Amino acid sequence: MVNFKEIENGVTAPLGFKASGVACGIKQKGGEDLALIYSEADALTAGMFTTNKFKSAGIIVDLKQLKHGNNFRAIVVNSGNANACTGEEGIKDAEEMVAITAENLGINKEKVLVSSTGIIGRKLPMDKVKKGIIEAVEKLSYNGGSFAASAIMTTDTKPKELSLDTGIKGRGNKTIQIGGIAKGGGMISPNVATMLVFLTTDACISLEALKESLRIAVNKSFNRLTVDGCMSPNDSIFIMANGLARNERIKPKSENFSSFAEALTFLCETLAKKMASDGEGATKLIEVKVKGAWDDKDAHRAAKAIASSALVKTAMYGADPNWGRIISALGSVKVKFNPDKISLKLQGTSLIEKGKFVDYNEKKLSDSLKNENTVIIDVDLHHGEKYTTVWSCDLTEEYVKINAHYRT
Amino acid sequence: MVNFKEIENGVTAPLGFKASGVACGIKQKGGEDLALIYSEADALTAGMFTTNKFKSAGIIVDLKQLKHGNNFRAIVVNSGNANACTGEEGIKDAEEMVAITAENLGINKEKVLVSSTGIIGRKLPMDKVKKGIIEAVEKLSYNGGSFAASAIMTTDTKPKELSLDTGIKGRGNKTIQIGGIAKGGGMISPNVATMLVFLTTDACISLEALKESLRIAVNKSFNRLTVDGCMSPNDSIFIMANGLARNERIKPKSENFSSFAEALTFLCETLAKKMASDGEGATKLIEVKVKGAWDDKDAHRAAKAIASSALVKTAMYGADPNWGRIISALGSVKVKFNPDKISLKLQGTSLIEKGKFVDYNEKKLSDSLKNENTVIIDVDLHHGEKYTTVWSCDLTEEYVKINAHYRT
Repeated sequence: MVNFKEIENGVTAPLGFKASGVACGIKQKGGEDLALIYSEADALTAGMFTTNKFKSAGIIVDLKQLKHGNNFRAIVVNSGNANACTGEEGIKDAEEMVAITAENLGINKEKVLVSSTGIIGRKLPMDKVKKGIIEAVEKLSYNGGSFAASAIMTTDTKPKELSLDTGIKGRGNKTIQIGGIAKGGGMISPNVATMLVFLTTDACISLEALKESLRIAVNKSFNRLTVDGCMSPNDSIFIMANGLARNERIKPKSENFSSFAEALTFLCETLAKKMASDGEGATKLIEVKVKGAWDDKDAHRAAKAIASSALVKTAMYGADPNWGRIISALGSVKVKFNPDKISLKLQGTSLIEKGKFVDYNEKKLSDSLKNENTVIIDVDLHHGEKYTTVWSCDLTEEYVKINAHYRT
Repeated sequence: MVNFKEIENGVTAPLGFKASGVACGIKQKGGEDLALIYSEADALTAGMFTTNKFKSAGIIVDLKQLKHGNNFRAIVVNSGNANACTGEEGIKDAEEMVAITAENLGINKEKVLVSSTGIIGRKLPMDKVKKGIIEAVEKLSYNGGSFAASAIMTTDTKPKELSLDTGIKGRGNKTIQIGGIAKGGGMISPNVATMLVFLTTDACISLEALKESLRIAVNKSFNRLTVDGCMSPNDSIFIMANGLARNERIKPKSENFSSFAEALTFLCETLAKKMASDGEGATKLIEVKVKGAWDDKDAHRAAKAIASSALVKTAMYGADPNWGRIISALGSVKVKFNPDKISLKLQGTSLIEKGKFVDYNEKKLSDSLKNENTVIIDVDLHHGEKYTTVWSCDLTEEYVKINAHYRT
């Protein structure tokens, strides 16, 4: 039974979490660039990281931290500088971020994680970072979630946050709450973690159940997202569970596990869609739904091929119902289906029905593409029972502008 | 011993070939849109086609024709309309193009191949096509190669042609010549044939040697090319060999086979680079050289990952030596190497040497990216002996403009 509802306060919605976001001068253009998420009690923490061979210094440090334990109190995050491809010095800087944070929070440095996003290959301005961390600790507050959401942004145009009351009973009148913030922009492609996402919950949950629910939620959300097919060395997703709701501990097979996983999935899916809508330069969310696939892999491969095609993305930007490009993208990947049997809809308008081309009103369809913020592409491969959805965005001149002059 | 030299006349350079290109009104914007290549003698013909599941009507018809024999006299090509995703009617139209061409040339219709490129999913205007073919037959000439090169263009800004004197002796003073024309633009990604290419030669060669030399040449040229990672339903490469040089027949293990294959490879490589330089909206050719790879697959995968990264392509467009994106693209694919051991050069400037970051003059490097038409990225994986080169182009606002409004 899903019975969750949206509430306010993002990562600071769950009990015992504080957050803050400050501007300390890492971003050349100015703006908030340092965020801190803090739990008053030890929080069981799970992470998923980029599969990129070049991992940022932050991830290298986090992987070490996570080897020694799963209980954490804080995550410190900077934007504007990825601290990636920065060698030994970069790792020292990440370790120093952890140490400064721990010192100022008065906690053990084994309890702090660190994350960075921004330009690759530049040294962190540690003097600025230090001042930023001190200020962020001072500004920690029970409703600081939105400040943290803003401070982790790079080329995002809007902060992305969401929190839910799961409806799952805790002690007394308390129910379990979950919250999340995310930063997207570019370098986004579906493969394990592909962006920065910080999730918090006051659930009391076993490590196994926490990891499993995160895996389920990520597979159905961030792993179905593509902006430009690029994977960064910094992509990370964290979830912290501090148990302050004092519910009966959730275990993988316990009654409340599926409710918790469902709420977490909804939260992650919503954040993923927000990321796609706000992909670099995007004017539209593109939702590619594939059904009738032989297996899950085929469903994903087909949907991803369409969602990541530069030609589909530019056509949708131009409000041109050029479905030949959808078909071409679909045909270009190894997926089991009979090309003479597929069905295709664009914005609900049937274009191909079991291989037969259908007459449609091109003007009307083009108007719908022009006027709607979401493009919906439905493909039925008529070759099995599996289905999926992948989210993407259109490709615009603005994407090129943003990325041609990102560092200047 | 390679001893070939460039000559004039494109596909009509080899003995006994005529060609023409006419404007018959298929392209809404006007311009030449129908080409004909004709051999006075039967030409042994080999073809390589798209692996896209959705194949154009032309390819479906060609595959039937090639089942019945390998001797052809003519290839008729239209641009402006792909005759793809056009169902049974499309196949009838392609067959009619073959029939009209055969009738007007006074040859058997089993001796004609057909090719189309342009918008997908629209019916060919067969009345215009018919008039065009009749005119193209009338205009066939021994120096019509460049007209054919122009008539197969879609979003290309320049015709692409090249011809070579291979230096391989034929009868009397005659030497074997080869010629080629190609059309690129968009929907280009390295996988078997990925564009339209028509090659001619007066070599006397066995079918086995012709196919093998084409396979070698294509693997080293068109299969190493990426513009936007998209594969079209129409991609085709043909080679016609009419034997009029009357050389001793080239067989796979005969003396002249490797000279012929080398010349053909050089010709295809040159056409491939021309396609990359003239990719949709491109301002620069990007040449990605990877060496030190464990095997050929790894070399190709690494080079392709860099060459097709939207973030690398936009940075190069912006003359921003943002090498972090090159590293990120490299790290995102499954390739065997140690990230702490790689070397990277951009425009010959060393950025990473065996894992160590090198100081460089950013202003000077940016100026070089600004002023040169070719960007050269050198990666040494230091993990083996294999190497490759992949060609690509930068990603610009113009690519988006061209493709957002391609049909309007």
